[in-house]
Amino acid sequence: MSAPIDFYFDFSSPYGYLASEQIEALAARHGRAVMWHAIVLDAQFQPQGGVKIPLALLRTEYARRDCERSAAFLGIPYKTPTPYPVHTEHAARVFQWLSDRNPDEARAFAHGVFRAYFVEGRNIAEVAVLLEIAATLGLDREEVSNAFSDLATKARLKAEIDLAEARGVFGSPFFIVEGEGFWGPDRLAQLERWLETGPF
Amino acid sequence: MSAPIDFYFDFSSPYGYLASEQIEALAARHGRAVMWHAIVLDAQFQPQGGVKIPLALLRTEYARRDCERSAAFLGIPYKTPTPYPVHTEHAARVFQWLSDRNPDEARAFAHGVFRAYFVEGRNIAEVAVLLEIAATLGLDREEVSNAFSDLATKARLKAEIDLAEARGVFGSPFFIVEGEGFWGPDRLAQLERWLETGPF
Repeated sequence: MSAPIDFYFDFSSPYGYLASEQIEALAARHGRAVMWHAIVLDAQFQPQGGVKIPLALLRTEYARRDCERSAAFLGIPYKTPTPYPVHTEHAARVFQWLSDRNPDEARAFAHGVFRAYFVEGRNIAEVAVLLEIAATLGLDREEVSNAFSDLATKARLKAEIDLAEARGVFGSPFFIVEGEGFWGPDRLAQLERWLETGPF
Repeated sequence: MSAPIDFYFDFSSPYGYLASEQIEALAARHGRAVMWHAIVLDAQFQPQGGVKIPLALLRTEYARRDCERSAAFLGIPYKTPTPYPVHTEHAARVFQWLSDRNPDEARAFAHGVFRAYFVEGRNIAEVAVLLEIAATLGLDREEVSNAFSDLATKARLKAEIDLAEARGVFGSPFFIVEGEGFWGPDRLAQLERWLETGPF
């Protein structure tokens, strides 16, 4: 099997959510696996270029409309969340902890978190909400709860973010396949061409 | 005939160039006219949201690669220009001056400027280069030259930029059709769906 597609996302990223609903089908069409990586694009994040899309841009009326229209265009359920953005450190920690145990469970958890925030309007910064999502997946509530406060889990996420920065990731969603980076859900068509024809 | 598509662009915008090579064919498929508007996204530009894509982002290695790859994906000739970015005030002034006289000539001039910069690697900040482009279109060299220093032409461009800001334009390319804004060449598919089906 060919190299997997690395998929980096922040749980509060609307475009990350839209990509999360498309990437597996795209990869399956070309016999590729997807490695999901939760990162946190907050003040600690210092991408190589030293540039992030300013948060204010994502708060504008245009951005709100663009997310809603893009979701409608793609046929993906979407409701503008409030509050926005939210802290995603806890969700990302649980995701990475699960990912090391069982990637399929982690992926199901990621879908659950994204949909809770961007479809059901629940506040995914709240530990209680994350525990509910985990419970619906049949995960042990106490075990998940312990993961929040575990120093090892915190360090695990930090390492994931450091690695993402070192690989040139600076936004969400961000894809890497065979060393080539693709930023944003609007690059899925180019990513698919890459899988079909190789570098162009 | 239905309402035209307003197409806003800055001559130093690579994504504006890519859009300039696609918008007329898209509009023609749906019986729409395109109104071209040259604007200048410099320090004077204060969009309503107060946010611009930081210049540094467009200088990153990722952005360089993304422009080259996007052009290859679309089958549009493209060569990363140097210097980048350049001042586009003169080019925009000539464009708007022409536009008021003859929109077809103005469109031809815009294509000439974009291609000179993004295909031939010429510095479109230089008046001599702009005069050469105008000359190849059969325009009177002296008349064009006078337009650079004409206070009326300067005020004309300023008014165009003020109007763009008032309409919520904050980047290049930016399209408006029937009051709906679309930012970036990646929104052409959504713009086309809008023309096909109406609001979604």
